[in-house]
Amino acid sequence: MNQEEKMMTALRQVIDPEIGKNIVELGMVRDLCLDENGTVSFTLALTTPKCPLKNQISSEARKALLAVEGVKEVLITFGEMSEAEKQALFNQNKPQLPSLAQFNQIGRVIAVMSGKGGVGKSSVSAMLACGLQRQGELVGILDADVTGPSIPKLFGLPPGGLRGNDLGILPSLTKTGIKVVSVNLLLQEEDVPVIWRGPVISGTINQFWNQTIWGRLDTLIVDLPPGTSDATLTVLQSIPLSGVLMVTTPQQLASMVVRKGVRMVQQLNIPIIGLVENMSYFQCPDDGRVFPIFGESHAEEIANLAGAPLLARLPVNPQVSTLCDSGQVEEVNLPEMDKLVKMVTQHVFEVSQN
Amino acid sequence: MNQEEKMMTALRQVIDPEIGKNIVELGMVRDLCLDENGTVSFTLALTTPKCPLKNQISSEARKALLAVEGVKEVLITFGEMSEAEKQALFNQNKPQLPSLAQFNQIGRVIAVMSGKGGVGKSSVSAMLACGLQRQGELVGILDADVTGPSIPKLFGLPPGGLRGNDLGILPSLTKTGIKVVSVNLLLQEEDVPVIWRGPVISGTINQFWNQTIWGRLDTLIVDLPPGTSDATLTVLQSIPLSGVLMVTTPQQLASMVVRKGVRMVQQLNIPIIGLVENMSYFQCPDDGRVFPIFGESHAEEIANLAGAPLLARLPVNPQVSTLCDSGQVEEVNLPEMDKLVKMVTQHVFEVSQN
Repeated sequence: MNQEEKMMTALRQVIDPEIGKNIVELGMVRDLCLDENGTVSFTLALTTPKCPLKNQISSEARKALLAVEGVKEVLITFGEMSEAEKQALFNQNKPQLPSLAQFNQIGRVIAVMSGKGGVGKSSVSAMLACGLQRQGELVGILDADVTGPSIPKLFGLPPGGLRGNDLGILPSLTKTGIKVVSVNLLLQEEDVPVIWRGPVISGTINQFWNQTIWGRLDTLIVDLPPGTSDATLTVLQSIPLSGVLMVTTPQQLASMVVRKGVRMVQQLNIPIIGLVENMSYFQCPDDGRVFPIFGESHAEEIANLAGAPLLARLPVNPQVSTLCDSGQVEEVNLPEMDKLVKMVTQHVFEVSQN
Repeated sequence: MNQEEKMMTALRQVIDPEIGKNIVELGMVRDLCLDENGTVSFTLALTTPKCPLKNQISSEARKALLAVEGVKEVLITFGEMSEAEKQALFNQNKPQLPSLAQFNQIGRVIAVMSGKGGVGKSSVSAMLACGLQRQGELVGILDADVTGPSIPKLFGLPPGGLRGNDLGILPSLTKTGIKVVSVNLLLQEEDVPVIWRGPVISGTINQFWNQTIWGRLDTLIVDLPPGTSDATLTVLQSIPLSGVLMVTTPQQLASMVVRKGVRMVQQLNIPIIGLVENMSYFQCPDDGRVFPIFGESHAEEIANLAGAPLLARLPVNPQVSTLCDSGQVEEVNLPEMDKLVKMVTQHVFEVSQN
């Protein structure tokens, strides 16, 4: 082992406590150099110059180097990683695929989110799943709305249908073969309330993610609950999302809360693949006239804030409501959805090629 | 002190660990009797025969009695409190009024809940507040939807309007004088996301309840978020509610989740004062025709489950949406609401007279 290798080995003992990996592996050690007087100099490239752990890391590095034979003094210059390096580091430390990796091969994971309740996240999730499946994809839905799960009812899946084995949870199958995991599939009656505080909610979602035998899926759709608290935070932080699809309605009240959702996703550095405006208008079934029953659209504004395209404006359609209510969402075939399905597919591929 | 008084004093040392009061005060000691041989016998009336603390309480009672001069043996018979006694006990141990009691005099507290998101809890809360206020009541609104607060926007209250002093939080005042406390009144911009986990959410709601200088109010309305997790549980457990008003929409999907809400409220023994069905139908502004745009009503079913009356069916009304969106909910005057306001008032009085 030459002198430089000895010093690098010493520096591998220094762990960035925030990331949990050593500073050599993290690429933080640069321009290491030992002069004839036994003085080592190197640049410690931090993720941010204000790193609160700067002193701790540098003092440990100094100590480790001074223990190497021939090193008498250590000079550390502080540097900062480039944006690209930080991005690479961030990706390295991204949430991981489930540990059932030998069984699960999941192409992309899309979260359907809003921030606001009752805007139709679940029906958009379900219709998107059906659309992707009609294009020949293998599709699953993880229902992350633990206290208000709607996915099983949309597909007519009865309560209590979830099975498990030693390996994990076996999803329920819809009529057309979409795999579904939801708390309501664990209950004996669909209207039993799930009165759980945040940590249990988060635990359940993590379990659905880590312990479900999904098998091979082209797309897994994660249907989020309203709000920006435990469930949403857990999904955005623990599941390696390809992107988020935001759902809104025309009301300003809704759009304000959806903007909160958009800003949360942006803060967590997750790509927003597009926006869907639901309940955009009501079209009279008799004479075809269009009524903006919930007011004028604010979708373009939100799309601008999100820096993502408005992918669809869906009407209020009593026939769709009836099919959804009777568990026949797989029969729904809105032309507005077809377009969305194609655009989402394309867009997600772009994201995953980045 | 006679012998019986001595024994009762001894028994006052025995605390029911669950309730935190002594068993004499709780009325659990019955038919206390000392015979000539020094044998004390009494009935220990428990809240439930399966009380897990049965052995602990009885062994402590035995010990306490044996320490009294003249007591040689203790015979304990286990009994159960009557329903009425338990109810009285439960009421004694109900959540308390805020500690700012010298300033706050609150007539009744009504929670507006659904379980489901986006059914119009906030607009029903706001319209109810306005209706009560028009009848001459002093009204406040506690916005318990921490991650998706809508109340300030409905009343056109700008972000950052909440003030405080040494005593507590001073609510914002709407144009007509309704007092409002909401997380969005603390933020500098209305669309900043509040990314908090459950315990912080619960802490915020408790603070809004305990540390707000409400002054005298005839009615305080608590606007709940969707779900049956932290925020809802905190409100139902920590605030002494006169009753809960449930809000639903015609969709079966919504009604399933609302039924979960109803069952949660029932499990917590809180009276449900009634049900409001929102977005019941759309009436064409041109020809007055009525369209059941979200399907047929399931409100009667839910009202039956809740054992409470259906108090109103509210239409989708673009004019109301527009007023709500522009912060002018106080200008809304739906005749359907007037009826609700009166019925709620009457009903709550009945509840509080029980």
